[in-house]
Amino acid sequence: MRFRNKPWATDFIAENSFYCIPDPENQKGKWNEIFGNNNPIHIEVGTGKGTFVTEMAKANPTINYIGIELFESVIVKALEKAVAADIPNVKLLNVNAQKLADYFEAGEVDRVYLNFSDPWPKTRHEKRRLTYKGFLDLYKEVLVPQGEIHFKTDNRGLFEYSLMSFSEYGLLLKYVSLDLHNSEFEGNIMTEYEEKFSSKGFPIYRCEVKYPE
Amino acid sequence: MRFRNKPWATDFIAENSFYCIPDPENQKGKWNEIFGNNNPIHIEVGTGKGTFVTEMAKANPTINYIGIELFESVIVKALEKAVAADIPNVKLLNVNAQKLADYFEAGEVDRVYLNFSDPWPKTRHEKRRLTYKGFLDLYKEVLVPQGEIHFKTDNRGLFEYSLMSFSEYGLLLKYVSLDLHNSEFEGNIMTEYEEKFSSKGFPIYRCEVKYPE
Repeated sequence: MRFRNKPWATDFIAENSFYCIPDPENQKGKWNEIFGNNNPIHIEVGTGKGTFVTEMAKANPTINYIGIELFESVIVKALEKAVAADIPNVKLLNVNAQKLADYFEAGEVDRVYLNFSDPWPKTRHEKRRLTYKGFLDLYKEVLVPQGEIHFKTDNRGLFEYSLMSFSEYGLLLKYVSLDLHNSEFEGNIMTEYEEKFSSKGFPIYRCEVKYPE
Repeated sequence: MRFRNKPWATDFIAENSFYCIPDPENQKGKWNEIFGNNNPIHIEVGTGKGTFVTEMAKANPTINYIGIELFESVIVKALEKAVAADIPNVKLLNVNAQKLADYFEAGEVDRVYLNFSDPWPKTRHEKRRLTYKGFLDLYKEVLVPQGEIHFKTDNRGLFEYSLMSFSEYGLLLKYVSLDLHNSEFEGNIMTEYEEKFSSKGFPIYRCEVKYPE
């Protein structure tokens, strides 16, 4: 379903290159020029259907958001939202997050968001989890010193794994909630998945971690 | 209730000085002599009614357990269990954990257990929480290098706080479960409180953290 080919999607993406940047490797180090300001840049890795990144962009006009999503058939949904929102501070990249350092200079990104990432529960798939140390290395390459990762998920196994992975990596746990929707956290923007899942009464886990200087 | 004076308790404790050590400050550095072997020493801070420490001692005869409990009216329940168990590898101390370093030499303790510690939810009582940095300093004073704290609780706020406190302190999160009774963890020994609480279907949180070298 998620991988189904949508021929119109390619055209739609090509037609909306203002929002879905076609050549991000050529923009490395120039994102502030693209946004036309020096505001902080927050990226969401695995942006899915884009509710989070577009709603965050609407709510925080002085922050620039870039949503990264591998699947064309999925990012096209995010693109529809970005086009409808008609705001200058959200961009999308239809690329593989493994190549993050091809698209951003060191220190160009202020924060990484991970929302409801694929849990890859099998041990042999550990390296695919977006909180695996290989990805933490990648984020470090593009983040400012003391840059942050903000992560939420409904998947208990992935959250447990991630807390250990962050600790092993030496990241500081600044904030953690083991039941986000019953916590005092304000300004939560729910993803499509989050709305569906949390309505069943399961907890949402959330944390913020910081790289050392 | 918990603080009610039990005149017979003082006598019972005095009569059973084999299990409840009356002068722990004189045993500092000599615990292996008391136990009559060089087995590792694990302490439980806030041992309550003592099910955990006595059952652990029964299950692990090559480890020495010391339960520490401030309240005489509570430790007396633990003492009844220790006397009934009639085993040489469990001792109790009716003392304030604040003075841990008066009772143990540096490196004399191999592991600290914290089970269902008082959450002290008010911010102004933070310093009383057994995972506050002041207590982490204390445990460090008596633990071996790379000694561990094993902590479980049903209290979400205390667990969230503790994960952050451990991270801030630089402890490595070796293991974490956000639903102990539905995890793969084996050999869990339930406290009285844990049995009561978990039967209502709430999750038990558990983690293991390690001091750096």
